[in-house]
Amino acid sequence: MSTQPAPTARTQVERLPERGHYDRETIHAILDQTFLCHVGFVAEGQPYVIPTSYGRSGDVLFVHGSAASRMLHSLAEGVPICVTVTLLDALVLARSVFHHSMNYRSVVILGTARLVADREEKLRALRVIAEQIAPGRWDDARQPNEQELKATSVLAVTLGEASAKIRTGPPKDEKEDYALPIWAGIVPLPIVPGTPESDPVLPPALAKRVPSYLRDYRAPGAR
Amino acid sequence: MSTQPAPTARTQVERLPERGHYDRETIHAILDQTFLCHVGFVAEGQPYVIPTSYGRSGDVLFVHGSAASRMLHSLAEGVPICVTVTLLDALVLARSVFHHSMNYRSVVILGTARLVADREEKLRALRVIAEQIAPGRWDDARQPNEQELKATSVLAVTLGEASAKIRTGPPKDEKEDYALPIWAGIVPLPIVPGTPESDPVLPPALAKRVPSYLRDYRAPGAR
Repeated sequence: MSTQPAPTARTQVERLPERGHYDRETIHAILDQTFLCHVGFVAEGQPYVIPTSYGRSGDVLFVHGSAASRMLHSLAEGVPICVTVTLLDALVLARSVFHHSMNYRSVVILGTARLVADREEKLRALRVIAEQIAPGRWDDARQPNEQELKATSVLAVTLGEASAKIRTGPPKDEKEDYALPIWAGIVPLPIVPGTPESDPVLPPALAKRVPSYLRDYRAPGAR
Repeated sequence: MSTQPAPTARTQVERLPERGHYDRETIHAILDQTFLCHVGFVAEGQPYVIPTSYGRSGDVLFVHGSAASRMLHSLAEGVPICVTVTLLDALVLARSVFHHSMNYRSVVILGTARLVADREEKLRALRVIAEQIAPGRWDDARQPNEQELKATSVLAVTLGEASAKIRTGPPKDEKEDYALPIWAGIVPLPIVPGTPESDPVLPPALAKRVPSYLRDYRAPGAR
């Protein structure tokens, strides 16, 4: 089986197919823009969708497992999950209500979750996740001890069956609506990182030493 | 059955239970902060998680149905879905890798999806969704015609079984780690709406007339 993402009957973008992308480069580029995903899994017929953090390493997504704590301990190899990553870029205000939309970049991954059990792989996975959240932080922070490692769960999901969906640009209206005297356009919705706020209990000298990778933090969606 | 959200075995926040909230007021307040949700549903054993827009009206969430287009037409009354809303507020940088976290506000709703079939209810639902995205826009835009109404699907989900999860404040570290010479604190990650960008094909006079509700647009998470 090729690991190259390709549309399958399950990942083919059916609605507005021109927005669909299946090449690995496009999918990786979106996944590398943030660290927040929504993980979907099924328990007793009920779907659950839980937000959590992830990091990408090659064609594997490491997903912080506390998300699925409810079912993690019953997870066997090969439990079907869905991991969705969404970057909301702008409101799209068309002349007609019907053509209102969003500019966005999203990836949907259908895969099977593998619980990372090996100590070394788990440590590497946690580093991948941490570095995707805040590059540079891992080496600065106190490393996990054995007890903390055991208390942390990580899932690995291979990007086998994945699709991206992208919308950019101005609104698209019905031909006859372009004559209407209605303002149309977009409102960008970027995440703009604020000034780092030191923990109030930090000694004053240390509080002033905000690491450069946090002062210059690159926002999700603008990496 | 009371419609007052309360923890059930399925919505009880198990991990870090002090972050769990079940009162309607808290849940409504989070839901009113944005319009982007992730909808989870199951098809042939596979979970899918799709981003889409929603609006709240009382104890009902109206969800824009294109999200679930893949399964919408096979949706009967009472298909189990999960709707999750996540506001990411800040990175939380602890002294230890293990205690790194996010400040966030999230709601998870377990419910059954009802396809809104009645013309008047669908029109009302679309208005609720549009007004949650951009309050004031509905009356300005060209209203949906019958063909557009038919082409749009809306799901209704009652907030029967819902839970909120909230984390705020500085990092929490292990007692002995507070002595480490490691910077700790938070990096806020607000969405900051940009200047509205007019559709390039708008007549220049109209392009200058950006509606006030878009110039002063209140960002998701800061409403």
